[in-house]
Amino acid sequence: MITLSERKDLIRAALGEEPLDLRIDNLQIVNVFNSTIEPGAIGIKEGRIVTPYAMDYQAERVLDGGGKFALPGFIDTHVHLDSTLVIPENLSQLLLPRGTTVMLADPMEIANVAGLPGFKALLKSIDKLDYHIFLEVSSRVPTAPGLETTGGELDLQDVTEILTWPQAVSLGELDPSKVLETRDEYLLKVEAAQRLGKICNGHAVGRVGKELVAYACGGLADDHECVDYQEALSRLKLGMAVLVREGSTERNLDLILKGVVSEGTYSQHLMFCTDDKHPDEILEEGHIDFMVNRAIELGLTPMQAIQMATINAAKHFRIEHLVGSLSPGRWADIILAEDINQIVPDQVFFKGRQVVSEGSYCGVLPEPDYPDWLFNTVKLTAGKTKEDFIVSHDQDLADVWVIDLFPDQIINTKTQAQLEVVDGEVQVDPERDIIKLAVVERHGVNGNIGISFVKGFGLKHGALASSIAHDHHNIIVAGADDQDMALCCSVIEEMQGGFVLVSKGEVLGKLSLPIGGLLSEEPVDTIISSLEEINQAYHQIGGTLPAPFMTISFIGLPTVPDLGLTDMGLVDVFDHKLISTFVE
Amino acid sequence: MITLSERKDLIRAALGEEPLDLRIDNLQIVNVFNSTIEPGAIGIKEGRIVTPYAMDYQAERVLDGGGKFALPGFIDTHVHLDSTLVIPENLSQLLLPRGTTVMLADPMEIANVAGLPGFKALLKSIDKLDYHIFLEVSSRVPTAPGLETTGGELDLQDVTEILTWPQAVSLGELDPSKVLETRDEYLLKVEAAQRLGKICNGHAVGRVGKELVAYACGGLADDHECVDYQEALSRLKLGMAVLVREGSTERNLDLILKGVVSEGTYSQHLMFCTDDKHPDEILEEGHIDFMVNRAIELGLTPMQAIQMATINAAKHFRIEHLVGSLSPGRWADIILAEDINQIVPDQVFFKGRQVVSEGSYCGVLPEPDYPDWLFNTVKLTAGKTKEDFIVSHDQDLADVWVIDLFPDQIINTKTQAQLEVVDGEVQVDPERDIIKLAVVERHGVNGNIGISFVKGFGLKHGALASSIAHDHHNIIVAGADDQDMALCCSVIEEMQGGFVLVSKGEVLGKLSLPIGGLLSEEPVDTIISSLEEINQAYHQIGGTLPAPFMTISFIGLPTVPDLGLTDMGLVDVFDHKLISTFVE
Repeated sequence: MITLSERKDLIRAALGEEPLDLRIDNLQIVNVFNSTIEPGAIGIKEGRIVTPYAMDYQAERVLDGGGKFALPGFIDTHVHLDSTLVIPENLSQLLLPRGTTVMLADPMEIANVAGLPGFKALLKSIDKLDYHIFLEVSSRVPTAPGLETTGGELDLQDVTEILTWPQAVSLGELDPSKVLETRDEYLLKVEAAQRLGKICNGHAVGRVGKELVAYACGGLADDHECVDYQEALSRLKLGMAVLVREGSTERNLDLILKGVVSEGTYSQHLMFCTDDKHPDEILEEGHIDFMVNRAIELGLTPMQAIQMATINAAKHFRIEHLVGSLSPGRWADIILAEDINQIVPDQVFFKGRQVVSEGSYCGVLPEPDYPDWLFNTVKLTAGKTKEDFIVSHDQDLADVWVIDLFPDQIINTKTQAQLEVVDGEVQVDPERDIIKLAVVERHGVNGNIGISFVKGFGLKHGALASSIAHDHHNIIVAGADDQDMALCCSVIEEMQGGFVLVSKGEVLGKLSLPIGGLLSEEPVDTIISSLEEINQAYHQIGGTLPAPFMTISFIGLPTVPDLGLTDMGLVDVFDHKLISTFVE
Repeated sequence: MITLSERKDLIRAALGEEPLDLRIDNLQIVNVFNSTIEPGAIGIKEGRIVTPYAMDYQAERVLDGGGKFALPGFIDTHVHLDSTLVIPENLSQLLLPRGTTVMLADPMEIANVAGLPGFKALLKSIDKLDYHIFLEVSSRVPTAPGLETTGGELDLQDVTEILTWPQAVSLGELDPSKVLETRDEYLLKVEAAQRLGKICNGHAVGRVGKELVAYACGGLADDHECVDYQEALSRLKLGMAVLVREGSTERNLDLILKGVVSEGTYSQHLMFCTDDKHPDEILEEGHIDFMVNRAIELGLTPMQAIQMATINAAKHFRIEHLVGSLSPGRWADIILAEDINQIVPDQVFFKGRQVVSEGSYCGVLPEPDYPDWLFNTVKLTAGKTKEDFIVSHDQDLADVWVIDLFPDQIINTKTQAQLEVVDGEVQVDPERDIIKLAVVERHGVNGNIGISFVKGFGLKHGALASSIAHDHHNIIVAGADDQDMALCCSVIEEMQGGFVLVSKGEVLGKLSLPIGGLLSEEPVDTIISSLEEINQAYHQIGGTLPAPFMTISFIGLPTVPDLGLTDMGLVDVFDHKLISTFVE
């Protein structure tokens, strides 16, 4: 990560034999390593910090820090880059003004679409970005082997290869079931990570008692899905760090940190993550800065909160020699802010370059450079004619399973309904809000289509579809009309990925996501507008969900109860097996 | 470090599907991860901790903890195993009763004698010991290339190879000069360590200001040679951990920790080490337990002090998934003690096996198994006749440099003296306490003999010698008589290493150290008695140093000021070059 000549320059500058590249004077140094705040001046050479007490050093350029507090850049300890819809190249303008300079990312989505080559392509620009990406290497691609078709997979060998990359910091979130069932492949991935000196990330939502103990015994070092203080405490007691999460829909910070404050819990093994946070919300509400400020409001000291966002995370992920403190040799990722109790980044430096001025991004976004094949991942061999969506039945009435949505949640309830059969075809019943939900295999593998019924979209007619469908990322389409469902698939194929809304043969809105069918190269603003437009159109034709494309992308997950739907059909999540569309 | 089947057993036991191997009930769990002390019961399977709260688990064997406090085993963060004279197999009986279960060891001595094969041979038993050895991979073998002859070396490739071993945790202590001079070989070793996910240990005795900043910029993560609070604080401010040292002669704990207590310094990046502590002192005074108790006496909380000895160290060295806390999946290395304010290990468990009972070692020492060639490392091609020790001069008087000892210290003063010349041979002057000091190359390489003069041994006649001579470990011999000096070398060759005292052609005492000329397979007690006997004999013939063999083993060091002596001759340490025996 540092060349020999850079190291030599750094040492010579530290000795005073060469001038610094930059010195920022007149600062209050928030020294998270030593837990002190003292006056200082940051010396920078080759993008690294020489010392935060560089008052007596010569420099080629000197800036006045204006008495501001200087903090290390913030670290998001668990995030799915791909879920933002925005390519990594364009994320800078959202992240940097919020002071986030390190993203610990699990890019499992692109791997599910395009395997190791996709994974590599996504990360091609990694060294050109104005923030760091370190990898939490996806432990489960596919997520539900045998129950879904994906475009790529990462086997033990792939995972082991990626773990050797310098950017790899951990094995990404490992499902409890795979650990508790002691499945060789996953335990060997844990072993590979530990052998290579990396940690293993966990998530153990809802697990308690012996299952939680067993999960910890599996070698998992942390949990980012604690929903309240008691859950967090139970992890800490078992030697697991807690990555406090505050994403778009998963908002766990208050419940956890109120307990931490009232009980005086040791905060050394606490840190922050967003997991999935939409670009519009990062823009409006904030990112890790929002969490730090909220933690301070709740009663943590500014130092504790800032340590959670910096050194705690860096030490946990074993990258404290690179980031996480304003110490010699670390990257010069620096936030300057007026107020330590309510941190609003005024200037931000990344690798010693100023990338935020007066709160606004002032860097240069790198040109995206994705390979052509990554723009060609939607390969439909079925799903473009209405006949593909027929559910046949040989009686007049059909008892079917229905996936009953919870608004704003990704879980659902397994219910049943009786539907009419006309000419041997089961009919939807929009009056009762029961329409079809289908998953169309789009990786060009087998043309599978899994069809079931869903309740909760509120559509009287039309259909909507997405090529983001966790975690297999086939096309998922919900509709009151087979023809419209087929049109959705055709439009997504044309766009090579994205969101689409159709009614009565007419396309009412679309958002193109052509990179792997997951991401757009368009600027952040454009993406946000398109998303707002298509959501509006959905509401105009009767749709009732606040964020229908987020809902549809998660609703088929074969690992989230009660029911999942993949290209292979309906999945009973608790039993982990395929079941019939019909109640038998 | 954990096999697949062990992992599965552990998980199944955690789930309650299999009984625990052992449960220790009725304990106060010192949970250093979460910083709490709570009632608990430790469940153990496959030598690992299942949970410290195992009250509702079935077990094949149950012990009553008697309400004692349960702590993780202590970690010595920097130690030279070879300096104890005792082979690792026999050290257990000294370490375990003191609660030390982890030694982070830099075995540079054996590497200087026998290179990588010696390094491997020393560590052959590593998995059979009743304590863990993790490696701080020697960064400088030889210590002074070009100024000394060693029997082995570890080049960049060797160091890189060892760094990949699972036992390797860091690059061992790197000299400031090698960093500040930006020497490629050493900076590349740092790079290799960091690339492999390991940290780099430092020592920066006496370095201040820009030199210290430059050293930190070199990638060094810590310093174990801070002598007082101000030094320690200066390291912490620059993002370096402080390994508080309390060895036999280097006693830094009080001065550092008094400052930590009075200033309320953040103790997260503080830990303990002994560096070099003699076996008799471990036996009588203690080891890390002694430091923990002293820290508590000085005013640290028991939790802070215990964290320094456990989790702080484990996190710093990135082995917190293996040791350092009583958490699921970690080795079951446990101390039981009555009193948390004055910790006296009553029972100690290592990998779940009881190895200390009522304060005494109750394990089984493994049989040593060293290769024959490691018993044959003293290969003299010169030094066995008195003519080898003649210093010729062509005038009646000779002005020579004299290494003037400081008692109890390894530094010395460069002084001069005028000596008589008889028949062309410079004479010693025992009346003024000036005798000869010689280093005889013993690795069978070149038969070099470096000769100078030394003041401070107090010998009127006779000679003493040691095959431990840092860091090249040739034979170092001090004598008032050339014939006795030659006899010393012959005896050491016969013993294949050790200490010897000779006077008037008679051997007055000897201690055999046949493994690499550094270590003895004899039991600890035997070694201590022999050492006491030979020291006594030295004092009987007029010797004045309290520990002459410790002094003689360090006095030639070519890196400790003012003067060093190697087989190549006298070394001016500050100028880092060879100088004449004569003042010119």
